[in-house]
Amino acid sequence: MSPHSLLILPGDGIGPEVMAEVRKVIDWIGAKRDVSFDVSEDLVGGAAYDAHGTPLHDDTMARAQEVDAVLLGAVGGPKYDDLDFSVKPERGLLRLRKEMDLFANLRPAQCFDALADFSSLKKDIVAGLDIVIVRELTSGVYFGEPRGIFEEGNERVGINTQRYTESEIDRIARAAFELARKRSGKVCSMEKANVMESGILWREVTQHIHDADYPDVELSHMYADNGAMQLVRAPKQFDVILTDNLFGDILSDCAAMLTGSLGMLPSASLGAPMANGRPRALYEPVHGSAPDIAGQGKANPIACILSFAMALRYSFDMGGDAARVEAAVEKVLADGMRTGDLLGAEGGQASLTSEMGDAIVGAL
Amino acid sequence: MSPHSLLILPGDGIGPEVMAEVRKVIDWIGAKRDVSFDVSEDLVGGAAYDAHGTPLHDDTMARAQEVDAVLLGAVGGPKYDDLDFSVKPERGLLRLRKEMDLFANLRPAQCFDALADFSSLKKDIVAGLDIVIVRELTSGVYFGEPRGIFEEGNERVGINTQRYTESEIDRIARAAFELARKRSGKVCSMEKANVMESGILWREVTQHIHDADYPDVELSHMYADNGAMQLVRAPKQFDVILTDNLFGDILSDCAAMLTGSLGMLPSASLGAPMANGRPRALYEPVHGSAPDIAGQGKANPIACILSFAMALRYSFDMGGDAARVEAAVEKVLADGMRTGDLLGAEGGQASLTSEMGDAIVGAL
Ligand SMILES: CC(C)[C@H](C(=O)O)[C@@H](O)C(=O)O
Ligand SMILES: CC(C)[C@H](C(=O)O)[C@@H](O)C(=O)O
Repeated sequence: MSPHSLLILPGDGIGPEVMAEVRKVIDWIGAKRDVSFDVSEDLVGGAAYDAHGTPLHDDTMARAQEVDAVLLGAVGGPKYDDLDFSVKPERGLLRLRKEMDLFANLRPAQCFDALADFSSLKKDIVAGLDIVIVRELTSGVYFGEPRGIFEEGNERVGINTQRYTESEIDRIARAAFELARKRSGKVCSMEKANVMESGILWREVTQHIHDADYPDVELSHMYADNGAMQLVRAPKQFDVILTDNLFGDILSDCAAMLTGSLGMLPSASLGAPMANGRPRALYEPVHGSAPDIAGQGKANPIACILSFAMALRYSFDMGGDAARVEAAVEKVLADGMRTGDLLGAEGGQASLTSEMGDAIVGAL
Repeated sequence: MSPHSLLILPGDGIGPEVMAEVRKVIDWIGAKRDVSFDVSEDLVGGAAYDAHGTPLHDDTMARAQEVDAVLLGAVGGPKYDDLDFSVKPERGLLRLRKEMDLFANLRPAQCFDALADFSSLKKDIVAGLDIVIVRELTSGVYFGEPRGIFEEGNERVGINTQRYTESEIDRIARAAFELARKRSGKVCSMEKANVMESGILWREVTQHIHDADYPDVELSHMYADNGAMQLVRAPKQFDVILTDNLFGDILSDCAAMLTGSLGMLPSASLGAPMANGRPRALYEPVHGSAPDIAGQGKANPIACILSFAMALRYSFDMGGDAARVEAAVEKVLADGMRTGDLLGAEGGQASLTSEMGDAIVGAL
């Protein structure tokens, strides 16, 4: 393996077009820095299903296990709605998460100054918002057994299993506490311990790890329903939110939408360190495949570009360049450049996906 | 049983003080109308635990099964945080829901004109908002077996089971479609069919009931994470939202907070018809026990009063009087009366719980 290997999986919908812009940024960094990225590209999701009859080919899975970082666009679309559950586009992504053991999903919800007006929330509620949801990504109801649709008496029953072991909770709690130490030192853990035993164990283990190894971090617990409320009411009360796979799915989307910057938000899914010391890692935008605008050059490439910036920071130890990419994004926004999703009711001139990508490279 | 029997369970925290105001409204209606309410009162939650060592005494449970309607304040509080799971205040409420088989939880999220400014969302996003979440309340992960904390190898594992039978989905879907027919004729059903088989069955059954018996209603499906986003982005796109117990818990709290009127929102939990044709029913405010302000006369009694209005409408066939109570609430708000929770940043004079109750009775 070259020292900077990257597997790109554009996926479905707007995935390919936003990824094309990321490649420009990768090329720029590769050219300007003393690094060469070994970039390979492959299929995932519906695109892989169309080609191979499976949303993730075994060869792609094997390659993902070898590289330093995977960068994914998006998966899914109405075209695949009627596919059997086992070959749905989402299964490709879930297989990557599970087999790479990417247990720590970091989802920053950040409100960009230039876009604060664009939130559906009042400006003072969200301006300057900068929180991170740490979502457990490889267990819980997403993967628990038994699961399926079974016959029972003379009807069917749909079953899924929420399941968390102590060690699964332990490692994700540590990830949250470590992150909090680099930020404001505050973690709020969310579950439904008032209703679910898995939530009781979650609360207990989290508190225990805290007391034993992270007493310097401020830990609070909140029921997830109240968490959703508090996110809407006063999101700036939080810094790091720690939660499980399913609650994390919903709460992080809620948090993302608060910022008004959905097309701007990246995410990192991290696992244990590999032989070379780097964590197994997959980076992807928080937004989905947006089939309604796919192929029209309207998509905002920023979330995917910022996902690559996270890769620079977490996988390649190039934090300086990550910050440079982030600054370039802020600059083009401050200059007033907007893709269609960033235009408010006042309207204005929408830039194309490629124009946005070019401008960011220009600002680098 | 008298024709209008009502069991009042004030519960914990602010429950007793808001319920005292509801009693004034009940007395007023009883005096002015040709009905006599047979009101009994009992304990639930932490209050019941303190008295009996259980969050719901069997006698109370039996009485709840006999009456036309149960009116509940709120349960829970930090005092009970360390209690064993089986006797937590919440178990009292969950037992009522389960044993009365109150499968249909109706949670209106309505933005009151006089309070539109008070939402954390921009006024144009929420003004006039009037949606109802229909949440399944007696199954899913709240009640599924197996559940508990078990030893496995040399660690513990927390397990809960998400479980839905076809007939459970059938009856809650019908409740949503029936309600939609009385409203704008639109239902959006939310699950995670892309990840959970129970969601696939949910989607399939809902669609089937729709096609067979409610083709006149407009039905759409949405993943619950996107649902949370869309609620924040543009809640007025919805009318009736149909969802399961756990997603409903979170999404309805999120929706409630959008309105800025949390202290204003009632809910009804309905079951099958009893011998007298009335549905088994429990009414309660959406807000919780608010231990931080309990006993200070600061709580807003409106949500609980409006819960009684729902009882008038759904249990006692007194829709006219329900509307009268609702109009009285609107009037005192329009007159500028505010409990502390309804005062924005501008401040103003906060009324006491009892003053608000008296004013509403005065406006009747
Ligand atoms: C695409 C889907 C399987 C996925 C999830 O549910 O985890 C997505 O919603 C996400 O949050 O990354
Ligand atoms: C008190 C608690 C058990 C309950 C729930 O989780 O259902 C509450 O949050 C609600 O939504 O009514």
